[in-house]
Amino acid sequence: MNKKNLTPNAFSKMRSRFFKSVCALPLFAWLLVSILSFQNIKKKKVIFFGDSITQQGAMAGGYISKIDSLCKLDRLSNEFEFVGKGVGGNRVYDLFFRFQEDVLDQKPDIVVVYVGINDVWHKTTSGTGTEFKKFGAFYDKMISQMKAAGIQPVMCTPSVIGEYNDDTNLQDGDLNFYAKWIKEYAAQNNIPLIDLRQTFMGYLDLHNPKNEEKGVLTTDRVHLNAAGNLLVAKEMWDVLKKM
Amino acid sequence: MNKKNLTPNAFSKMRSRFFKSVCALPLFAWLLVSILSFQNIKKKKVIFFGDSITQQGAMAGGYISKIDSLCKLDRLSNEFEFVGKGVGGNRVYDLFFRFQEDVLDQKPDIVVVYVGINDVWHKTTSGTGTEFKKFGAFYDKMISQMKAAGIQPVMCTPSVIGEYNDDTNLQDGDLNFYAKWIKEYAAQNNIPLIDLRQTFMGYLDLHNPKNEEKGVLTTDRVHLNAAGNLLVAKEMWDVLKKM
Amino acid sequence: MNKKNLTPNAFSKMRSRFFKSVCALPLFAWLLVSILSFQNIKKKKVIFFGDSITQQGAMAGGYISKIDSLCKLDRLSNEFEFVGKGVGGNRVYDLFFRFQEDVLDQKPDIVVVYVGINDVWHKTTSGTGTEFKKFGAFYDKMISQMKAAGIQPVMCTPSVIGEYNDDTNLQDGDLNFYAKWIKEYAAQNNIPLIDLRQTFMGYLDLHNPKNEEKGVLTTDRVHLNAAGNLLVAKEMWDVLKKM
Amino acid sequence: MNKKNLTPNAFSKMRSRFFKSVCALPLFAWLLVSILSFQNIKKKKVIFFGDSITQQGAMAGGYISKIDSLCKLDRLSNEFEFVGKGVGGNRVYDLFFRFQEDVLDQKPDIVVVYVGINDVWHKTTSGTGTEFKKFGAFYDKMISQMKAAGIQPVMCTPSVIGEYNDDTNLQDGDLNFYAKWIKEYAAQNNIPLIDLRQTFMGYLDLHNPKNEEKGVLTTDRVHLNAAGNLLVAKEMWDVLKKM
Repeated sequence: MNKKNLTPNAFSKMRSRFFKSVCALPLFAWLLVSILSFQNIKKKKVIFFGDSITQQGAMAGGYISKIDSLCKLDRLSNEFEFVGKGVGGNRVYDLFFRFQEDVLDQKPDIVVVYVGINDVWHKTTSGTGTEFKKFGAFYDKMISQMKAAGIQPVMCTPSVIGEYNDDTNLQDGDLNFYAKWIKEYAAQNNIPLIDLRQTFMGYLDLHNPKNEEKGVLTTDRVHLNAAGNLLVAKEMWDVLKKM
Repeated sequence: MNKKNLTPNAFSKMRSRFFKSVCALPLFAWLLVSILSFQNIKKKKVIFFGDSITQQGAMAGGYISKIDSLCKLDRLSNEFEFVGKGVGGNRVYDLFFRFQEDVLDQKPDIVVVYVGINDVWHKTTSGTGTEFKKFGAFYDKMISQMKAAGIQPVMCTPSVIGEYNDDTNLQDGDLNFYAKWIKEYAAQNNIPLIDLRQTFMGYLDLHNPKNEEKGVLTTDRVHLNAAGNLLVAKEMWDVLKKM
Repeated sequence: MNKKNLTPNAFSKMRSRFFKSVCALPLFAWLLVSILSFQNIKKKKVIFFGDSITQQGAMAGGYISKIDSLCKLDRLSNEFEFVGKGVGGNRVYDLFFRFQEDVLDQKPDIVVVYVGINDVWHKTTSGTGTEFKKFGAFYDKMISQMKAAGIQPVMCTPSVIGEYNDDTNLQDGDLNFYAKWIKEYAAQNNIPLIDLRQTFMGYLDLHNPKNEEKGVLTTDRVHLNAAGNLLVAKEMWDVLKKM
Repeated sequence: MNKKNLTPNAFSKMRSRFFKSVCALPLFAWLLVSILSFQNIKKKKVIFFGDSITQQGAMAGGYISKIDSLCKLDRLSNEFEFVGKGVGGNRVYDLFFRFQEDVLDQKPDIVVVYVGINDVWHKTTSGTGTEFKKFGAFYDKMISQMKAAGIQPVMCTPSVIGEYNDDTNLQDGDLNFYAKWIKEYAAQNNIPLIDLRQTFMGYLDLHNPKNEEKGVLTTDRVHLNAAGNLLVAKEMWDVLKKM
């Protein structure tokens, strides 16, 4: 085809086609980038695995909902997907009971394990807490199976059973003992740790001047109020967003 | 062939052959039966799955050793193989912890589950017993998985924590409550039941005239002495030999 | 004085006097009897010494109120005075704590001691029940001091913690154990016994066909409903009215 | 009598008499002072009122024996008399049970009350610890009765149940809670306080580098070894010798 032989009309058509192509280019590029982006940014699926605190955490105002909000504020909502798998009253062996179905079968990328309160608490409420050695054995078995399945675990220390800030809550000693094991295990196995217990204790030192047993971060010594949910959300999001 | 035409020598040979055949017949028959028998009598592998009572049961003088002896007395030792899988302190969730390795992977034909004492006992000794609802949940999960794997489960009620025969042992009520669940579950699911608790109670009614707390069937209110091991062995063997 | 010499008038006067005397006699006799009666029938002061069941027992519809009604029905209300001294949560050592003020200083004639439920129950709810040996020691000390003060004690076995009628309530064994001690102590020391536990068990055998945990004689496994209060009232009144 | 007229011999005799008198004076004065002293320094009777730690404290090598030694070293043994009244397993209400006989009837000047460990400990070992409110009620009643009887009470905080120095002993929280009440009560009521818990914790911070659960000041997490007995003895003697 030669330009000289072209009728004005034909030339006009060509020019029209050319500009159409030029206009289409950015659109095409954008599509291309989007598709590639989409392939690169497959969302990370994060499961929060725990007890009633996590069960409530998935509700409106709960810590998982707040993490979702923080994620959006940081414009990272297309990188993360958050799933709550909390069941009231769960101890570490109750997590193990539903570990296959609620964790492994879900094929998550990251699992935040927040357990230990009922393991200690139920010793005094119903005589059905978890023996210390077994706490470690069940926990370790799940962490090992996550690693074998290519899942990144994140460990949390248990927050509080009572908000007194002078070491006088009934089960402070035992809770510290279990928290200590979690910290040491995480360190030895190079697992990200969210030390909720230390965070709570630090917060209560500053914000519980009347040394109340509850009401600062919890509603009932254990379950989180709005401030408690926000504190947990912040601590967890700080760790998660870097992963 | 006619006898009259036969030379003495030929007759003698025939007679020899005939008798050889006659003599060989039983041998052949025996061999045949033996071979067929061997195919039929592949030994049934029985796993005893439980706590310290079962751990001790596998030792000399223990109830598993005694079952083995009873089996031999009944000339059934080529039909059964007995394996002890008891671990001290185990509650139902501890059985579940090692269920894959110690039961499913062992490919048994029959599994006798003898658990429940620590689930109740540890409530008062260390605050780490098993919540009633969870006792059923863990137990049911294992029974279901056994059935799915073609394994025949046998359930036992927990024997005793204390040998008083007038319903005054500290945890009689709770033990009865867990035993009741086991009996009902076994009945509903058509699972052979060995009601050790009833057997022990009946025995203690007759043989504990001074109403001693221990020493009749146990050494320490829980772990079996020789009489206790024999009683358990008899009860179990009566059920097993018919399976 | 001769009737013949009397004028009609004089005779009339004499007759009048005579009849006045005759009429006055019954009045006088009645007054005499009444005064003597009043001296004889000084009301017997009965103190009911116990825990929250007794505290509620003194309220409208409570067992002490019902005993008062039964007493009136038997027209014995001028022979008995009933005083409730029950305090919620009390164990035997809590009774001892207020024994001087609430019993000895009140100078009662009879004291009905109804204790033992919290001594057993609190073992599992808060770890603050009463050691068996100490239960007996405190109880014995109070009974001895009552006897020394000329007060007649009456002992009751603890009723129920849970209304299952097949020996499956969590603390049936322990409750039976403490009840057994009370029965033996009462027998050995010749003290009237009200075996509430046996009474309740017999009642529940007949009137708890669905084997409910509560609602037949109690509202919450422990505290008495109307039927429970009436049952206790009848049992106690049967013993008290003969004293 | 004139010195000039005296023969040497007579003079000598006189001088001898004079010097005898002079020599006798101090002796006489000393006797006089001693007698008066003896009347003034009626020994202070100190009763140590507590549990098995105090029971063992009265034995050879126990803290009471060591206080007696320290007292002698300070040459104050004629000012103090030490009496141990410790009974194994005692909680505050067990002290109250024998308060009349073992304290009031003994007419002591000073009573050192060292209680609280079993009140907390038995919650987990046998479910028979002491409810917090009742701990205070029983303690207060005894202190009040001592004051009314002119007896000087001294209060001690409970030492330890476990020697971990990082707040991880099972019952650290509860023990701190009871210790806190004792400290506040002593301050409010102007009663000398021996803060054994703080003393032990400070000692363990320095002398338990491997963070052992026992063996530094106790033999078994609770009962004192030689070092523990000496530490208690020093703390107590420092307070007692000034009284």
